[in-house]
Amino acid sequence: MVHPNLATMLCFIATDAVVSADFLPAALQKAVDCSFNMVSIDCDTSPNDCAFLLANGLAGNEPIDFDNGGDFQEALNTVCTHLAKSMARDGEGATKLIEVIVERAGDQAGARQAARTIAGSPLVKAAIHGNDPNWGRIVAAVGRSGARVREDRLDVYLNDVRVMKQGCPTPFNKEEMKLALSNSDSVLIRLCLNLGDGQATAWGCDLSEEYVRINSRYTT
Amino acid sequence: MVHPNLATMLCFIATDAVVSADFLPAALQKAVDCSFNMVSIDCDTSPNDCAFLLANGLAGNEPIDFDNGGDFQEALNTVCTHLAKSMARDGEGATKLIEVIVERAGDQAGARQAARTIAGSPLVKAAIHGNDPNWGRIVAAVGRSGARVREDRLDVYLNDVRVMKQGCPTPFNKEEMKLALSNSDSVLIRLCLNLGDGQATAWGCDLSEEYVRINSRYTT
Repeated sequence: MVHPNLATMLCFIATDAVVSADFLPAALQKAVDCSFNMVSIDCDTSPNDCAFLLANGLAGNEPIDFDNGGDFQEALNTVCTHLAKSMARDGEGATKLIEVIVERAGDQAGARQAARTIAGSPLVKAAIHGNDPNWGRIVAAVGRSGARVREDRLDVYLNDVRVMKQGCPTPFNKEEMKLALSNSDSVLIRLCLNLGDGQATAWGCDLSEEYVRINSRYTT
Repeated sequence: MVHPNLATMLCFIATDAVVSADFLPAALQKAVDCSFNMVSIDCDTSPNDCAFLLANGLAGNEPIDFDNGGDFQEALNTVCTHLAKSMARDGEGATKLIEVIVERAGDQAGARQAARTIAGSPLVKAAIHGNDPNWGRIVAAVGRSGARVREDRLDVYLNDVRVMKQGCPTPFNKEEMKLALSNSDSVLIRLCLNLGDGQATAWGCDLSEEYVRINSRYTT
């Protein structure tokens, strides 16, 4: 879970902008879908996650609505994504933030499934904990995600270094990569499925011995 | 995964019975569905699991077929279940076998989902590692499993001690339970959903610091 001792996730966002009552919940839903709903610490769920968005209208601006809400939506996405990433980084026992970007999936649902499955895979998470550029586990996770994958089109990048092209491992300096991973508190895994226009980003964290210690030593 | 160093799971079962060519694969499918397909070490999948069943007919018995195959099916289920449980017990870093029985689910698919989700939950697995009778995590896992659950009908047992009745925690001796858990290398989690006739059993293992060490220190 995210934060069992803190009643898990209680997110309150406030703005003084004037926003239409129809647009406000729609904008929040959109922002939550690409932020909080794309975060996992361990794939277990918590009993009471919620996100509230309050707009009191004190700014007196021209009302923000569906036709002019682009900037507002973008700002809201930025806030929610920042908070979501902070939670992943703060996961139980976490030492690294993992960001998984899936590009050019066959569809949007597939992109989300693929990104979330990789970010949640215990084997990927343990490999990242060990600073191990283990592309095999990333590929295994996308394979079981339910997303459509054609191996001969699959490109994989780790921290912007290509480690697989069209399903074939490409040479890279493993020792350099291990060093880069061990010197950083965040890791970027990027897959290009080369099948369509689906795109999604998910966040998670590494799996450490400390995670096990924390979660085997207290009763919720 | 189960055994990455051993090309994961390669299961070969042989019999000298005479068995019809139609019945044999059907019996294997049935046995695999209630055994190997109900085991998980970490919810990650391995690239090459397979089970083979060979019958050479040397016994010269009356051919076993759908109409008289009950005993054969039962024996085959027993063999496959024994092997499946052995794999769970032998999971990376495992110190305990976890058996999850879900009874009286709304349907069979729900029973399987519920049993597998509980057996695969990192938080349940970590709690079992810590000998912690943490029914809250079991209930959270069944809640997210996708199975139909009515909280006011849910009974939960840990090693045959009832810890929840109709959704309410029932008193039990926690220290005694912790001691019993710590003295045993297997744990039984049993849920009665009291909704229908679905029944399933799944197996897994606890999540230990050793699992993390093993899986963060080698490259597949």
